[in-house]
Amino acid sequence: MAYRKTPAVQSRLDAAREHLVEQATSVVAEVGWANASVTAVAAAAGMSVGSVYQHFPSKGALAVEVFRRASGREVEVLGEVLRDGSGDPVERLALGVGVFARRAMERRGLAHALLAAPAEPAVGSERMEFRRRYREVFAEVIREGIAGGQLPAQDPDVTAAALTGAIGEVLVDPLSAPAAGDAAEHLVTELVAMSLRCAGAPPAG
Amino acid sequence: MAYRKTPAVQSRLDAAREHLVEQATSVVAEVGWANASVTAVAAAAGMSVGSVYQHFPSKGALAVEVFRRASGREVEVLGEVLRDGSGDPVERLALGVGVFARRAMERRGLAHALLAAPAEPAVGSERMEFRRRYREVFAEVIREGIAGGQLPAQDPDVTAAALTGAIGEVLVDPLSAPAAGDAAEHLVTELVAMSLRCAGAPPAG
Repeated sequence: MAYRKTPAVQSRLDAAREHLVEQATSVVAEVGWANASVTAVAAAAGMSVGSVYQHFPSKGALAVEVFRRASGREVEVLGEVLRDGSGDPVERLALGVGVFARRAMERRGLAHALLAAPAEPAVGSERMEFRRRYREVFAEVIREGIAGGQLPAQDPDVTAAALTGAIGEVLVDPLSAPAAGDAAEHLVTELVAMSLRCAGAPPAG
Repeated sequence: MAYRKTPAVQSRLDAAREHLVEQATSVVAEVGWANASVTAVAAAAGMSVGSVYQHFPSKGALAVEVFRRASGREVEVLGEVLRDGSGDPVERLALGVGVFARRAMERRGLAHALLAAPAEPAVGSERMEFRRRYREVFAEVIREGIAGGQLPAQDPDVTAAALTGAIGEVLVDPLSAPAAGDAAEHLVTELVAMSLRCAGAPPAG
């Protein structure tokens, strides 16, 4: 029977859902999509399996929420740096790619799950949607660079798609390998340099 | 009970398997992995469903064979052009990317299935393996270009991974859109230009 939830009940439910999504994100970061069972997530959140299903109808729905939140944060940070970072479009592109790659390398487990790890079809669809958002933020800064004369004539949508695909493919193996400070820094440097070349920015130095 | 097949029986079996894989490839190109059921493939090959299972234990095993054959051809053609095409490493890179993209645009259905379409996990694993092979052939020509002074210093493995990811991501949307000659030619031109920039080749003209 439907009943109206009091504000206090609703607020407790919201807090529990929030806690659940946070804990599920940690579990996914640690063991990947395939092993992040509802049982494992419930245990991490200190909830019963039944309570998890009160918030999300299926493991897939919870996975989609985890993916959306975490990917949403990354594309927002990237978009902010590309739009509002300091410097001209070329400098902002370098900064944005560097920030994105460093954030990924610092939280490899989560980044690998978001970018590359095999996942259920619903997460796969979300991934495609987010790749579209990445392309948009890259296309914007490239268009600005072309208009301002910092970048040569090019189809900004092709370069934006290229950067989106390139960065993901360059990061996928390092994200699943054990951490190593120097190697990570080398990778970020090369990734930024490759991205600038890809957009046709003049060589630095 | 095990029995020894005569050469004539074995040769008939081989020919039937060959025919089956070819027909399955056509079905996948036309309707994608998800809709390429064993029933549909059997009908296309003029075989019973039972005969299909005589050659392949599961739909997944047949899908993997279709993927391996078709992807194997593409990576071989690309590798040949990059290694043995005419011109210096930069010219061969331009040629290789152009040939790869044109072949994909000419057989969009198959290319989309090979590069991007959601597929069963076994095909997903093959895809990762083939991306590794693409990286290798790109890394080889980039190394050659650096050694010969046609390309600037760079980590060839990073650029090779970038090209592999970039080309796939640039093609994925056009491959699922209806064909259009001029748009396809524009895309190939932009894709080649982007690839050369990405590797640091001096601007043409």
